[in-house]
Amino acid sequence: MSQTRKDRGKAVLDALNREAGEAQAQALADIAPDFADMVHEFAFGDIYSRPGLGMRERMIATISVLAAMGNASPQLEAHIQSALNTGLSREEITEVLMQVSVYAGFPATVNALTIAKRVFARQSETAQD
Amino acid sequence: MSQTRKDRGKAVLDALNREAGEAQAQALADIAPDFADMVHEFAFGDIYSRPGLGMRERMIATISVLAAMGNASPQLEAHIQSALNTGLSREEITEVLMQVSVYAGFPATVNALTIAKRVFARQSETAQD
Amino acid sequence: MSQTRKDRGKAVLDALNREAGEAQAQALADIAPDFADMVHEFAFGDIYSRPGLGMRERMIATISVLAAMGNASPQLEAHIQSALNTGLSREEITEVLMQVSVYAGFPATVNALTIAKRVFARQSETAQD
Amino acid sequence: MSQTRKDRGKAVLDALNREAGEAQAQALADIAPDFADMVHEFAFGDIYSRPGLGMRERMIATISVLAAMGNASPQLEAHIQSALNTGLSREEITEVLMQVSVYAGFPATVNALTIAKRVFARQSETAQD
Amino acid sequence: MSQTRKDRGKAVLDALNREAGEAQAQALADIAPDFADMVHEFAFGDIYSRPGLGMRERMIATISVLAAMGNASPQLEAHIQSALNTGLSREEITEVLMQVSVYAGFPATVNALTIAKRVFARQSETAQD
Amino acid sequence: MSQTRKDRGKAVLDALNREAGEAQAQALADIAPDFADMVHEFAFGDIYSRPGLGMRERMIATISVLAAMGNASPQLEAHIQSALNTGLSREEITEVLMQVSVYAGFPATVNALTIAKRVFARQSETAQD
Repeated sequence: MSQTRKDRGKAVLDALNREAGEAQAQALADIAPDFADMVHEFAFGDIYSRPGLGMRERMIATISVLAAMGNASPQLEAHIQSALNTGLSREEITEVLMQVSVYAGFPATVNALTIAKRVFARQSETAQD
Repeated sequence: MSQTRKDRGKAVLDALNREAGEAQAQALADIAPDFADMVHEFAFGDIYSRPGLGMRERMIATISVLAAMGNASPQLEAHIQSALNTGLSREEITEVLMQVSVYAGFPATVNALTIAKRVFARQSETAQD
Repeated sequence: MSQTRKDRGKAVLDALNREAGEAQAQALADIAPDFADMVHEFAFGDIYSRPGLGMRERMIATISVLAAMGNASPQLEAHIQSALNTGLSREEITEVLMQVSVYAGFPATVNALTIAKRVFARQSETAQD
Repeated sequence: MSQTRKDRGKAVLDALNREAGEAQAQALADIAPDFADMVHEFAFGDIYSRPGLGMRERMIATISVLAAMGNASPQLEAHIQSALNTGLSREEITEVLMQVSVYAGFPATVNALTIAKRVFARQSETAQD
Repeated sequence: MSQTRKDRGKAVLDALNREAGEAQAQALADIAPDFADMVHEFAFGDIYSRPGLGMRERMIATISVLAAMGNASPQLEAHIQSALNTGLSREEITEVLMQVSVYAGFPATVNALTIAKRVFARQSETAQD
Repeated sequence: MSQTRKDRGKAVLDALNREAGEAQAQALADIAPDFADMVHEFAFGDIYSRPGLGMRERMIATISVLAAMGNASPQLEAHIQSALNTGLSREEITEVLMQVSVYAGFPATVNALTIAKRVFARQSETAQD
């Protein structure tokens, strides 16, 4: 509990997807450094780190929302990677995105699957190195 | 496998939330009965009944998307009930809706929690009967 | 051509749905009367009254967009009536709304059909008088 | 600076619209009390209370976004009142909502004006007491 | 009637825009082949192939919704081509997209017209070969 | 007052962001020249040029809406430049975009800040020439 919100958030984000977290913080560093801190503190320190829901479940909620919104491709790409890192299988992620089609329409799912395919391919390449 | 898509969908929907499923079918009966069938067949028969993702996970995806969209209150209300029926706890549902705020903003979560509160209250009343 | 944009718009709107047009103008009269004029001038005088696309086709575009957006129920209700007035049949309107489901999801269609049902019922009552 | 985030947020919200803030906190109290705190802490304590942009400008941004989204009527109603409390005139609020029409369409503006009309009428009644 | 849903859907899609249909099926083949089938079966086999609304009218609804949503550029591009293939003129398509501006705002129309321009230019090039 | 709507709109747009206005008019010239005129006439001639709200306030409303919608990047980029031209400081624009996060979620703000960073960088380069 003595951990600060920012430290707690950074720890969560490092475990989920350190690379994407650092890239975003760096991208925001010279325009809105405080906002990068708020992402660490509020999103990851306050919300993601709450007990009462597993990280796996949080990632399902996150990629569902981002796929449905359809206007946040960089975030969807980053968090499909986070979902893999959290232990969701490619099949589970694909099924989550198909589930989205019922409520948000076919293009939302097709466009999200296109992004997922890119993330899966990159992971396969990395695994072969 | 010899089960028809419609039968399979109806079975899934009956398990999830028979009351809401029947109410919707009845509401559509005199304007677009075929569309009620398609909901049974496509949404519940094709998508929800696929292996590869648990029903619990499907409900997390569903209520996340509906909360984020913010323009489908009747469906969100029905599926928060479905989520309870599937075994998600009130705390888990509340956490899923809070997770949505990071990506879709605070009003999406506040308005979804207002609906969840109504569903939880109704469930408590029923339990007391 | 000597007709003003406002007169031309009013003529179009009167033919489409005079009742809804007057109700909206009256509702806006004491808060933003100029905006009511702009609706007449821009929406109906400039856009709807252009040659190159029939009114029937314009109404299909309009109710599709409003159903997909899902956050403009009063306008969707008014323009389902306009679509009927333009000569689209109930079946055609229902098919248009079902078509929307492919791109905007099932709740968009279900909620729009609920509104269409109300408009159709009101029309039937009026016809019986 | 020794003020806590929650205290700072509560002070901002009390100045903006104490009634709406308390109503929301109360509504969330028995389902997600932590989320009510987060609204105080993040939205009002972290964001609204930052220097670098006046409260008047923040309210213009807020009501514009809520009007454009079109799916957050309770929040739009509360913050049109906040905008009045911050010193924006009725005319200015009406102009902001008209400006939204260019980017988010006419229904967004018409529906937001309908809400504004309700808020203005309530204020007039209160003033007469 | 003895035709399967998938065959019927494939026939509709081949007539509308075989190239785009095959490209999408191929893109989905190694991540979600079942979803490609569902697009054929549900979207084109169940919905598009229904009697009661002409294909021309269905394409007006489709491009209106995709233009209004503004987050499905690949689908909008494919279906502006489908609309041309169905016999809608460039002028009619342009008018449909202008009609969208009233309800979804100017950027939706401007961005859709930019896509339409690309499709029209490609068609002109092909015609010159 | 004897000025036409188009002239008045062109004057407003020239003052705000002549380069973007001319680029858009040119892009639309061979597909929908009338729509380019309507942008000048309705958006800039009718709405932006109204008294009752300063241009600075109008630009805050505009960039807030475009950031929240998240599907109109070209327009957001053009109008962040317009906001600078109107005298809003980089800090004020950044604060406006951060304010949006409360209502439309973190990705809306992060993606808008990425666009703002590009506009600010271009302005710095130009200033150095």
